[in-house]
Formats: sequence, C-alpha cells, structure tokens
Amino acid sequence: MKLKIKKLGIKTGGHLVALLHEKNLQELDIVPGDRIEIKKGKKKYVAIVDSTNQETTIKKNEIGLFTELINGELKEKLTVEIERAKKPQSINAIKEKLDGKELTNEETKEIIKDLIENRLTEIETTYFIAGCYKNGMTLNESKYLTEAIVNGSKKLEFKGEKVVDKHCIGGVPSNRTTMVVVPIIATAGLLIPKTSTRSITSVAGTADTMEVLAPIKHTKEQIKAIVKKTNGCMVWGGTLDLASADDMLIKFERALSLDPQGILLASILAKKASVGAKYVLIDIPIGPQAKVKTKKEAKELKNKFIRLGKKLDIKVKVMFSDGSEPIGNGIGPALEARDVLLVLQNNGPKDLRKKSLKMAGMIMQMAGIKFAKLKAYKILRSGKAYEKMKEIIKAQGGNEHITPERIKLGQWTTKIKAKKTGRVIAINNKILTRIGKRTGAPNEKGAGIYLHKKKNQIVEKGQPLYTIYAEKEEKKDMAEQLAKENSGYTIK
Amino acid sequence: MKLKIKKLGIKTGGHLVALLHEKNLQELDIVPGDRIEIKKGKKKYVAIVDSTNQETTIKKNEIGLFTELINGELKEKLTVEIERAKKPQSINAIKEKLDGKELTNEETKEIIKDLIENRLTEIETTYFIAGCYKNGMTLNESKYLTEAIVNGSKKLEFKGEKVVDKHCIGGVPSNRTTMVVVPIIATAGLLIPKTSTRSITSVAGTADTMEVLAPIKHTKEQIKAIVKKTNGCMVWGGTLDLASADDMLIKFERALSLDPQGILLASILAKKASVGAKYVLIDIPIGPQAKVKTKKEAKELKNKFIRLGKKLDIKVKVMFSDGSEPIGNGIGPALEARDVLLVLQNNGPKDLRKKSLKMAGMIMQMAGIKFAKLKAYKILRSGKAYEKMKEIIKAQGGNEHITPERIKLGQWTTKIKAKKTGRVIAINNKILTRIGKRTGAPNEKGAGIYLHKKKNQIVEKGQPLYTIYAEKEEKKDMAEQLAKENSGYTIK
Repeated sequence: MKLKIKKLGIKTGGHLVALLHEKNLQELDIVPGDRIEIKKGKKKYVAIVDSTNQETTIKKNEIGLFTELINGELKEKLTVEIERAKKPQSINAIKEKLDGKELTNEETKEIIKDLIENRLTEIETTYFIAGCYKNGMTLNESKYLTEAIVNGSKKLEFKGEKVVDKHCIGGVPSNRTTMVVVPIIATAGLLIPKTSTRSITSVAGTADTMEVLAPIKHTKEQIKAIVKKTNGCMVWGGTLDLASADDMLIKFERALSLDPQGILLASILAKKASVGAKYVLIDIPIGPQAKVKTKKEAKELKNKFIRLGKKLDIKVKVMFSDGSEPIGNGIGPALEARDVLLVLQNNGPKDLRKKSLKMAGMIMQMAGIKFAKLKAYKILRSGKAYEKMKEIIKAQGGNEHITPERIKLGQWTTKIKAKKTGRVIAINNKILTRIGKRTGAPNEKGAGIYLHKKKNQIVEKGQPLYTIYAEKEEKKDMAEQLAKENSGYTIK
Repeated sequence: MKLKIKKLGIKTGGHLVALLHEKNLQELDIVPGDRIEIKKGKKKYVAIVDSTNQETTIKKNEIGLFTELINGELKEKLTVEIERAKKPQSINAIKEKLDGKELTNEETKEIIKDLIENRLTEIETTYFIAGCYKNGMTLNESKYLTEAIVNGSKKLEFKGEKVVDKHCIGGVPSNRTTMVVVPIIATAGLLIPKTSTRSITSVAGTADTMEVLAPIKHTKEQIKAIVKKTNGCMVWGGTLDLASADDMLIKFERALSLDPQGILLASILAKKASVGAKYVLIDIPIGPQAKVKTKKEAKELKNKFIRLGKKLDIKVKVMFSDGSEPIGNGIGPALEARDVLLVLQNNGPKDLRKKSLKMAGMIMQMAGIKFAKLKAYKILRSGKAYEKMKEIIKAQGGNEHITPERIKLGQWTTKIKAKKTGRVIAINNKILTRIGKRTGAPNEKGAGIYLHKKKNQIVEKGQPLYTIYAEKEEKKDMAEQLAKENSGYTIK
C-alpha cells in the first residue's frame, strides 16, 4: 500500500508511532496498536499504528508521522510503501531465555536485530531483560550479546592505531578522573576517543562536566577530526548511535533499577568495542553506597570482565578503588570542571590527582609504554597535560583560554556546618547526591556542593563541612533544608 | 493546571494518551512519555503524555484526548485539572516479587490498584508477570490477587440467590458444554449468569457461538433483567468490566504465551466471584494438545483450585475430561450452535450431550439439589432445557424461532477424505484449529469444520473425515490446502 507522508508535529518521547486512516487499516487487516513496516528505498522502519477517521487530521492514503519517525528519508509529502509487520521470530528465543535456556549466537543476534529495528514490543523486551536478570548469563551469552550490540550499530574506527579506553562502574560522586586521564594519555601518543554519558541519577556525569568547558555534541566525522588533531576527545555518546541497542535496553533495566550482570558486562565492553578500543581499564569503586559493596563482589566482577575481554580480543585490566566518599572536592558540573583544571595545573584535590595518575599509568603500561607511571607523572607535572586539555577544548569548539577562576559558579551559596567537633569517619554518597540534585545540578551548571572536609579530617564544631551552590535562591534553600536534616557526614 | 479538553479522534488501540502543548509540559516539568493525572470532579485518570508545539493541533492550555480517554466525564470543551503523576509505590513490591519475595495482601492490592488506574507502565507490569511466572505464587498470594482483582472492579450481584458457574481450562475445540448446561441449570431453578469470552486462539469461543443465536453484548442492568426473567444468560464478558484487572493482565501473558499458574487460578476464580458464584465447577480436559497434558498435572491443579476456593469461600469441584479430540462434531460458531440446538432437541453429538449432562448434574448436586444427575437428565429429555434456551435467546434479543436447520452455514464446502482404511486413533486438536482458523471463523460465523469421524471409528479410504465450510471461496481453498498437507487425523 502506498501512502503519502504528513508531519503531525506530535512527540511521543521515544515510541515510533504512525497515524493511518481507518480505511487503510481495514485494507491492511490490522487494528490500532499493531505494527507496520514503512519502506522507503532500501530502508525499513517499523512503527506502532494509531488510527483516525477524521479527514481533517489525515485523509485516506495519507500516513501521519509522529516527530520521532521524521528523518532524512521520511519527509513530508514523500510516498512510502506500507505493509503489516510480521511477528518477530526472536520472541521464541526470549521465551526460552525466560525459561532458563542458554541463548545461542544466532538467537542473540536475532533479538538485538529485532530490538534495533523496533520490531519488539516493550512487553517482549522486558521479558528478555527479566530472563537475563533471573537466570543470569553465561560468558558465551555475554560475548554474543556484546558482539550483537557492536555489530548492530555504527562504529568509530581508527585503523591501525592503538586505541585505549577507560570505564568506571559508578556510584561515586564527582569521580571526574576521565578529564585528567584523557589529556595525559593523548599527550603520551595513544588514541583515547572518550564518549561519556550525562548524569542519570548522579549530580553530574562526565558529559555534563565537560560541557562547562566545550561543546560535547559532535558527529562521528567531527569526532574523528578532533581525535586526529589531538589524540583524544571527551564527547557525549548520546547521539552517536554507538552500541545503540545498549541504550535501548537501559530504559528497561532502569524501570526497576535492575542491573543484570551479564548485560552490564556486555553493555560496557560493547561501548568500548564500538570505538575500536583494544586496551580498556575498568575502575571498580568499592564502598557502602557504591554499586559494588564488597571486595568479594568486586573480585568476581573483575574476573568476568577479564574473561569476557579475552573472548572479545580486548585487553582488560581492572582496578579497585575507594568508593566510600566523593573523589575531589566539587560536586556538580562547574565545581567538578574547576577541580579538573586545578589538577591539570598541578593544584587541586590530591585524591583526584592521585587516582587519575594511577589510571593513566595503568592504561599506558597496558598499551606497551615503558616506565608508564613515571611518564604519566611527568606529563602532568610538566604542564603538557594542561596544554593538551586546552587543545582538546579548542578542537571541540570551546574557549581554550578558560581558567579555573573564570568558571562561573552558582551565585547563591550557603555553608553547612559541623554540629560537633571530631573526626569525619564517614561521608554518605547517597545523601550528598540527593542534596546535590536539589541544588539544580546538572541542568544548572553552576549548582552543586563544594566539600571542605573529607574522610579522616578533623573538624571543629561550627566549621563548614561544605558549601552549597545554586543558580536559584529557592533551590539553594531546598538543598539547605535537606542538608540540615542530614548533612551526610558522620563525625566522631 | 487547568486545561480545556479537545477531542483528537485518534485511537491508540488501548493506551490512554493525552496531547499537551510544549509550554504546558515545561510548566509541569515533564517530558513526552511521562504520565499525568487528569482530574474531573472526584474521578482521576492517568494518561501518557505526547507533546506538540503546533497551534493548529492544540493550543496552549488545551489538552487533546485520544479516543480511549473520552468518556462520560471527559468531554470536548470541559475544563480539567492536570498534574504530573507520582511514581507508583507498587514498583517496590513488583521488584520484590521479581526477586522471589512473597507478596503481602497490602502489596498485592497496591499493584492491582495501580494497574487499574493506569499508573504502571507496560514495562513495570511485565516485570510483575515475569516475577509471578518465574517464582510461582503461594496460595495466599493467589488469594490476595483474586480478592484484589474482584474488589478492584465492578460486580454483578444477585443477593440471597444460589449462584453457580462453570469454567473450562481450555485447549479443546468446539467444547460448547456451556450452552447445554446453562439451560438445564436455569430450568432447575439455580442462577447461572454466564459470561464468556470470544475466541482468542481457537476457532470459536462460547461468546462467538452464542452470537449466532442472540446478541451477546449487554449492560449489567440488562443482564440482571435477563437472569431475573430466565435464571440464566450467556453473554460476552468483554465490556462488563468484571474483574477488569484480569483482562488487563492477559495481554502481558499472551505476549509470550505464558500461563503463570498463580495468576491463572486467580483469574478464573475472580471472574466467578465477580458474578457472585458460590458453587463453581472446573473442567480440566487432559490431552496431548490440551492446556493440561497429564493426569498428574491435572491433579495438582485440581488441588490448588479446591484449596484456593476454600480460602475464598467458594465451593469448587473439579472434573477431569477427555481433551484428546474435539467435543461435538461442528467446529466454528454456526456449526457449534447447530450441535448445541440438536443436543437440546435430544439429538446431535453424543459426546457433547453426555459431558454436558454430567456437568449439569455435578453443579446441581453441589448446590444441594437431590438426585441431581437424574433431574438434569429429565430436564434435557423432556424438552424443558430446549424451551429454556429459547427463553434465554428471546430475553437476549435473539430469534427464539431458530432451529438447527435454519442456522446459516458457509456456502463454500469441500470434503477432506481418508487416504487409507483403518481406525482413527488420534485427532490433532492443534492442526484442526489451524485449519479451522483458515476458514475465516470465528469472524465469518458460517465458516468452520464438520467432523464426520471421531476417535476409534473405522474409516474407509476415500470416505470423508470432515467437511470444510467457508463463506468465501479463497478461504475454503486456503483451509483445504492446509488440510491436504496434514488432515490432523492418524489412521491405523
């Protein structure tokens, strides 16, 4: 059936929906809620169908496209070929996985293909995640999944080059090592095309923080040019369609805050494989409010990462780090960006400096650089890393003359003070995150928290534990109120 | 926020969707895909939000409602109060169930309440079903679920009367005992307000078959009047909102053809409790293509039904029956309706007659009628059941002068013949169902299959096994083609 496209100008927030006239639905023998295939040239798109009989909205033989379906090929007034979509084969494999069977390579590929092509309903995809969550995944299943995710979407390729990458398992506020490590690594001559995420539940993600210094949305071609010029980049992965199946799965995991380990492993290594990384360092922070709570858990995860890496021909090293308190002093995009620049100027928080140097050294050593740790230190110490950072900022279209002092912080501030004298014996990451989110971060870049005291330091009653920054007075008040109920600090 | 309703005239096929102007979304601090509460008077409706900035579709401060949201209260031009919906509490309980914990009564009520009020996303509901499927349900959980389903929606109440009901677990074609049992029971003076379903995967459901004789869509008030007049009815349950949460769950189970037993039990007994039934007979057909395959499985299920019935204060009896071949000879709405009328005229298929009499007797005995089996026989034999059937047909608005001969069958017919001489040792229900669906049934009422031979009968090569009926020539051809590949009969 041939139908003419009409733009509806309606956004669903994600679902691909097309509006057809009831008469066309009858001819296709489908009902609203069913799926159709929209063909234009060689490309096929699968959409969920809504229906109408109001000629004012769309006429018979027109197809109304919701905004998410409009793209370079599907444009107003073009004619497209429509047919009803078949029920995807991969449903059988999803059922088997839910029932505890091990998926084959073929089955995994089919599931990911149907997912990417929008052939699976949300219900079907949820059962896939539930199956992986309840039954776990074998190493082979994780391998198949990683490869299916990588091959199912676009890649960034740097032929013949030594590409390295890093990843942190997460759960620790202001852990902005990436922005120190990338300039060091890039100076050392390795390629590190780093794609990062925005914050989902934290006060700031690396992408949010880098955005204080330079634009982070770039096309694949732009990224290649930036990396060619500087050896590194720090960009947002959100619109690059690298490992896009992984991005599609995250929504389903997040609904119940599930973290099926087999998918976690595949998800992380797929992102790395998509940028062609051959050497990957994984940081597992351990702490009561980090994602990984115990050394035992961390060791098991480490083992799996290394074994999966071998299967995928990626050299993986895993380090454990202290996840019991924030890294650095600033929490929030601008405050964290300032810490990063200070460290690159051989100033700034010692813990951020130390951890970043360690990571840079490990990555360089993996990639075959001799005396790697010393070299990393020299690159930072000499100011070359800072110069490299300015180069990257410039290449990404930012202002390379930025200095820590010029970074704009929220104008509304208030200090949270110690209620007694003693030693800081614990800092609750979750509570600080909650307070930090209340300040307006990460959307309001200047908002956040600056810690004056870290673990094991002595504080006197009435001394400030941290300063709250906000761009709006009411948000400062809201964060302050929360902090006064519970500062997140334990002093003894 | 107050918004004015505009009808969009767009059907989604189920989802409740409202279209808001982007500016209103910003004010509510939500994005497309989020949920809002629409308040009108005391009623609240939860909808998924789409957005637009095209003033031609809706203006700022208007809310465009998709067809599924339009009802008596939500009408064009009325003003409604909108706020963003909170994340439902019951997500925690769903997570716990997925993780294997036993649900409490309170948690179950919350989940069903949120389900009915459209507060749960499809992803969240799927995880609930996955949890019940993977971990099973305790008897208490099934009890809580049944009660939550019953109390969460409307009921049909017949105060002080002996209300009885029956249910068949399914998987056997043309098993139309209901239409023989109801007139017998109603003649015996018990109330049997029978609601049935249309076919989902079978060639005809009881609702499809009854529709050949009389309208099946009635309001609760009409049903009460019909039952008051005749003691019984055979209506479609689809629009009555009895145990509506159950109807909402079915879609999620069907996606992967899951049948979580705890939900199955609750689902069946909730429907019975919703019509106030105190005595319920459950028929479990056992056979290689029936839902229940073995006697052992059947016994376990029986046990659970009886125990759950006790907890719910419903007297439940369970019978096992032969599910290895169709019951009666006709398969398809008109052909089955003809069989039913013939049996009521003391004619027609013996297996349908025998099974129906047994069931009627068991139900009457449960409800305290003495010499129940003999009485059931006399009611049928005397023609009183047939008279009662005509009464019910008339009360439901059908033509009481209908006779078996006047039922219109498909005009296109073809006979499928035995390829060799021998005894019919097996009939494959699934294959007959597939052929039967191909004829156009149940949408085309006259379409279907009429069996000339049943199990254990002798057939000679070239004799017809069955006749295919269709209303359209091409459907007859398609069914015939399938039947020629595999007739579904095993002859030895």
